Amino acid sequence: MTKSEKIRIGFVELETLVRSMFERLGMRGEDADTVARVLVWANLRGVDSHGVSRIPRYVELFESGQAKARPEMAISRPRPATVLIDADGAPGPVAMARAMQEAIATAKKTGVAWAAVRGTVHTGAIGYYTSLAADAGMIGIGMVAGMPNMAYPGAQGAAVATSPLAIAVPSASHGDVLLDMATATIALGRIAQFRNAGKALPEGAALTAAGEPTTDPKLAEIPTPMAGAKGAGMSLVFELLTSVLAGNPIVSSFHSGAPEGRRHRQNGALIAVDIEAFSPLAAFKRGVDDTLASLKGLPKKAGAESILFPGERGKRVFRERSSGGIPVSGAVWQKLVKDAEKLNVKVPEVAAA
Amino acid sequence: MTKSEKIRIGFVELETLVRSMFERLGMRGEDADTVARVLVWANLRGVDSHGVSRIPRYVELFESGQAKARPEMAISRPRPATVLIDADGAPGPVAMARAMQEAIATAKKTGVAWAAVRGTVHTGAIGYYTSLAADAGMIGIGMVAGMPNMAYPGAQGAAVATSPLAIAVPSASHGDVLLDMATATIALGRIAQFRNAGKALPEGAALTAAGEPTTDPKLAEIPTPMAGAKGAGMSLVFELLTSVLAGNPIVSSFHSGAPEGRRHRQNGALIAVDIEAFSPLAAFKRGVDDTLASLKGLPKKAGAESILFPGERGKRVFRERSSGGIPVSGAVWQKLVKDAEKLNVKVPEVAAA
Repeated sequence: MTKSEKIRIGFVELETLVRSMFERLGMRGEDADTVARVLVWANLRGVDSHGVSRIPRYVELFESGQAKARPEMAISRPRPATVLIDADGAPGPVAMARAMQEAIATAKKTGVAWAAVRGTVHTGAIGYYTSLAADAGMIGIGMVAGMPNMAYPGAQGAAVATSPLAIAVPSASHGDVLLDMATATIALGRIAQFRNAGKALPEGAALTAAGEPTTDPKLAEIPTPMAGAKGAGMSLVFELLTSVLAGNPIVSSFHSGAPEGRRHRQNGALIAVDIEAFSPLAAFKRGVDDTLASLKGLPKKAGAESILFPGERGKRVFRERSSGGIPVSGAVWQKLVKDAEKLNVKVPEVAAA
Repeated sequence: MTKSEKIRIGFVELETLVRSMFERLGMRGEDADTVARVLVWANLRGVDSHGVSRIPRYVELFESGQAKARPEMAISRPRPATVLIDADGAPGPVAMARAMQEAIATAKKTGVAWAAVRGTVHTGAIGYYTSLAADAGMIGIGMVAGMPNMAYPGAQGAAVATSPLAIAVPSASHGDVLLDMATATIALGRIAQFRNAGKALPEGAALTAAGEPTTDPKLAEIPTPMAGAKGAGMSLVFELLTSVLAGNPIVSSFHSGAPEGRRHRQNGALIAVDIEAFSPLAAFKRGVDDTLASLKGLPKKAGAESILFPGERGKRVFRERSSGGIPVSGAVWQKLVKDAEKLNVKVPEVAAA
């Protein structure tokens, strides 16, 4: 198999493989299960940049001690509607899924709950955690702050992070509305896709390492914030609402020059809103359906195929890939096989896609 | 005085004038005071599109019965951390300020609180309400949904609203960090400024009534969503989190074709997070200061004068206008004087700016 040849694998086989690998990396079975589910969920929804392609990075984080396979997370509930999770270097899926479960349980009583996550690593596709709330009949809101890798108006070089926002809302018959967006014009993973395809980037999407605008994906290192000062402002505010609120600042310590400030870590905030506190759940879901139907029923622009709601495309890919298998690029699959073999995990037979 | 001549007025005189006008319009003294404070706050911060220029619109809303001067707001607390305010057509400042006060009082106990506002009109600059939380040592988050006036990818014409998001965070020595942004590329008020100045709009910022892209501010009627699908998705989700959650949908009823669906109304959600639930307030504020200092201390881009945090420019204008007076365009002032005279309110002497 060459790097350019894709393979296709069923999601159950892929989850089993990933779970076994994380168990061999020292994780508890239940935690390995969570990591596998979150990564494969991203692949199922077509967000391959946040799926199993990230496994080598987790392996690095375990090896360098920046992440812990057996963290001792500390959970406190300082007020009736708040939860604080000290993640102790737990992989993002473990800390964030736990935080949303806590937020959901809390919001059942209080109506809304805010769970702060301090000191996790690499949270993956945060839409997964907000979807847990939607599955429980709640609205889920999530934000994450990470290491500076994005431009900020007026500043030279990377100043803030491409910190994402996700909001999940259940509907009656359309699945979840799932907004899951970075605050950058373009994701770093998407720049890599342009690079691999030999295509020029859109104007204004990225800067070189020296901070000059470029459309050359080989020179592009720093994404610009979406909508200029708005995306940059959202990213900065997410750092305050997650990192600074949880007492684990990233932006200020990253720019302080101290080597410790560049140690990889992320902080998050997850909010659950119990819909039943405001409206019978069935009525709310019908209201969401009505809103989506009215939007999708509007006259279409010339040339437009369809009017999509946030998360609709991902839901469609999820269905296709759930039944038809997940395509994985040859390069990602080869790395995965190599890591699996190092860990003595049996790799299932796969066919070319 | 001609329409192009600006006048300048002290903020106390302007607040007094506005308060008197709203009292004559039938509002209770305390409510008229709130409206005056919110509108003049926008002018003080340089957001003139949301300031006293909106008074004629409120007058219209009172006259048409879409807004009530003496609303009977109903406040319920369905769960320990949630508040629902049925605004009964109260002007936005009255309903939204009350909602944030309720959220703050609730969050003192529960750590976080979510206040839903159903059926208000014209909320004004929502940064004001989130700033109330920051003044109380809390984080304030606000969102509003209104009548569809913005494009949505794939749809012809106005599909969703330019619904804003605001987040206020207190600092130790920099005032509040205040992100206050619409989900549109350009505000309708800003299009009017381009029109008055005879300048072309930026590419991609707006469409004609027929849905064609235009840079001609005379033809521009529909702003595009900021960052395409992201801004559009945020706007749609805000409609679900405010209007549908509060049982007062706007998007679906607007597009239903029923005349009642086009009746002006807005819904909002205000969230207060008590910082002390997670961190001593002084430590948090120092952390915010450190973050702002590290950002503002970064090497500047060639040609950049300064690196600003969200709300910094508004704070600077606030200081200037608090001491030096508020400039008001001749056109806005003439309308204000006309309305004041109709209401038998004495207009103070003012000088040309």
